[in-house]
Amino acid sequence: MTDNRQDIRVDGERLWQSLMDMAQIGGTPKGGSCRLALTDEDRDGRDLFVRWCREAGCSVDIDGIGNIFARRPGTDPSKAPVATGSHLDTQPHGGKFDGVYGVLAGLEVIRTLNDRNVATAAPIEAVVWTNEEGARFAPGMMGSAAFSGSKPLSEILDVRDAEGLRCGDELERIGYAGPQPCGERPFAAFFESHIEQGPILEAENKTIGVVTRVQGMRWFDVTVTGRDAHAGSTPMNRRIDAMAGAAHMVAAVEDIALSHAPAMVATVGQLSISPNARNTIPGEVTFAIDLRDPSAASLDGAEADIRTGFAEIATGRKLAVEVDRITDTAPVIFDEACVTAVRTGADAVGLSHRDMLSGAGHDSCLVSAVAPTAMVFVPCADGLSHNEAESATPEDLAAGCNVLLQAMLSRAG
Amino acid sequence: MTDNRQDIRVDGERLWQSLMDMAQIGGTPKGGSCRLALTDEDRDGRDLFVRWCREAGCSVDIDGIGNIFARRPGTDPSKAPVATGSHLDTQPHGGKFDGVYGVLAGLEVIRTLNDRNVATAAPIEAVVWTNEEGARFAPGMMGSAAFSGSKPLSEILDVRDAEGLRCGDELERIGYAGPQPCGERPFAAFFESHIEQGPILEAENKTIGVVTRVQGMRWFDVTVTGRDAHAGSTPMNRRIDAMAGAAHMVAAVEDIALSHAPAMVATVGQLSISPNARNTIPGEVTFAIDLRDPSAASLDGAEADIRTGFAEIATGRKLAVEVDRITDTAPVIFDEACVTAVRTGADAVGLSHRDMLSGAGHDSCLVSAVAPTAMVFVPCADGLSHNEAESATPEDLAAGCNVLLQAMLSRAG
Repeated sequence: MTDNRQDIRVDGERLWQSLMDMAQIGGTPKGGSCRLALTDEDRDGRDLFVRWCREAGCSVDIDGIGNIFARRPGTDPSKAPVATGSHLDTQPHGGKFDGVYGVLAGLEVIRTLNDRNVATAAPIEAVVWTNEEGARFAPGMMGSAAFSGSKPLSEILDVRDAEGLRCGDELERIGYAGPQPCGERPFAAFFESHIEQGPILEAENKTIGVVTRVQGMRWFDVTVTGRDAHAGSTPMNRRIDAMAGAAHMVAAVEDIALSHAPAMVATVGQLSISPNARNTIPGEVTFAIDLRDPSAASLDGAEADIRTGFAEIATGRKLAVEVDRITDTAPVIFDEACVTAVRTGADAVGLSHRDMLSGAGHDSCLVSAVAPTAMVFVPCADGLSHNEAESATPEDLAAGCNVLLQAMLSRAG
Repeated sequence: MTDNRQDIRVDGERLWQSLMDMAQIGGTPKGGSCRLALTDEDRDGRDLFVRWCREAGCSVDIDGIGNIFARRPGTDPSKAPVATGSHLDTQPHGGKFDGVYGVLAGLEVIRTLNDRNVATAAPIEAVVWTNEEGARFAPGMMGSAAFSGSKPLSEILDVRDAEGLRCGDELERIGYAGPQPCGERPFAAFFESHIEQGPILEAENKTIGVVTRVQGMRWFDVTVTGRDAHAGSTPMNRRIDAMAGAAHMVAAVEDIALSHAPAMVATVGQLSISPNARNTIPGEVTFAIDLRDPSAASLDGAEADIRTGFAEIATGRKLAVEVDRITDTAPVIFDEACVTAVRTGADAVGLSHRDMLSGAGHDSCLVSAVAPTAMVFVPCADGLSHNEAESATPEDLAAGCNVLLQAMLSRAG
């Protein structure tokens, strides 16, 4: 039986066709998809997924935040399901694969097991988590947050979009405010397959990323205060130039990340300058730091370096500086047995693989708090994501789905 | 006669009162003035000045760009006038002194000569230059540009404001499109008294700045192009981060200015980052450089350093960089005899003084192309200008006016 199971392969063409069919819903002129959470497009995507799952013989449950659980029954009623999934919602200029791949790979696993008439001891579930992207209702990962209990459901339902529409009302409107209580659904294991959203697999010519950890992330808002003054009549030695100081701080952020190479990354992606006049020395600069590392100790060290380094730069220039940490997401270490199941699955299918970190956050980070979890990455062109040009090959997507199948089978018995 | 003339002093209280009266026109709640060029407020300010000049016995001429020339006759009809003046228009949140002081100091000189019944060989003129600030119709210094021939009148009259109103039409509307041809009015000398708009006199406790030169100014637009990428999943060694590169360039701008100390100043007052998302590595940063120095050779050297330094930073980071010079204003060296007249005047009045550069541009820069010119600076609080809180003391303003009087008398005979 085990030998047989290792030889089972998914139908890569069917998986690809399902991805292309789903991409039509909210399809954009540039070949991407726009299915913002709880819009009509999100509903249409969910409806299509539910129909496909029912056609595959699954029962479908919906919980109070709209998470969808499609179950293929197991032979042992005492066993919790081995689940997989991701999200169907997209960024406004989203691609065809981010999230969707993880959902439809789960469906393809179920379809393949049906085709081969494979019985598993534990049930197999394909899951859709509500609003991972957070593009319409912020922040994202609402479905996995409610499921894992990291945030109260009532608080999530009260979030409003930019037009003032309430999440809970929109969920009702599209018909996905389900009866099942959030989180009362134990998983024996959870796997999420996803495009890498980074350049490493492609650059190293590996097919499978065995995701062992997800980086912890801290966000900082920095305000540098100097003094507005005339750019012509203020000598260099009488300036308190917030931009000149901020430039040294931005450079220091990069140096600090490099001093924790190779895992740490740090980015200054937002910066604004006031009064923003060509001939006025800027009195204030604000900027944002995105700092990520798989080790909480390294994040602590880097944060201390940032605070000390910025204070030194400011003092030497008579600037004031404030560093506010506005987000602190702890690093996630995935379940060793689940990670091993992914690695072993890649070996079984004969695919090149490497262990890797996820730099981006995923529903799996939250799910991992309540269930043994791991992730499977496949390459995407240029590491591009959150972009209509997001691209992955049918072969790599099928390969990742085969690894998912093997990993789930090994855990489901 | 010379001894007598050196003892003449202006009426500082009358000068102050005139400044305060003028400040009522377009007066702002925070104690500044808003008299944008060619608005009703500008007209009211001009009308008040013209009335005062006529009351002081002056004839008044207006030229085709609205410059006002109020003449106190001399005794020698063959002599060209010794003129002084500045502008009555302000920034939107302008102060009470920038420009206005230079105009009303001229009026005070005339009033004082009347009081003392002093006859000069050359006529004495007080001048109002149209639209120095450029806040409504850009660029500024329109009146002195037309007078000096640095720009054709027709081109200036066709400039439109943000609402599409034409400069020439607005000039007609407020009744200041005069019959005199622009520029056909030779000056024996031109002096402009002005608040320093910088911190040096106040810091060094000097009353009079003898302005020998005006800095040359070059403006650059810089575009740094990298590649947008995910802040979490893109390792440091695979980034092409436009902001990290721009930070080193901004720091280099400061270093280059300091390497030409003490005269050179350089400012990065505008910067924008794209796509300006906290968790995206910026693919593009644009920023502006304002570079000033009294020496054209130093400006050439600094520009070369900027271009070479930026190219090195960009190459090392696989960034592209473009440096466009969008403005190039040559340094101005004021007339030696006029500068000496100011310095001698300050000595005659017994005031502390120092030679200095003007970092800001003034109508005098353009007038100096067609007439021997110099400027008198007086301190302003904190070097603050273009701000409703702009402040200068009655004593310093009177002191500057006394120096102006002596300088003009020495040139007018």
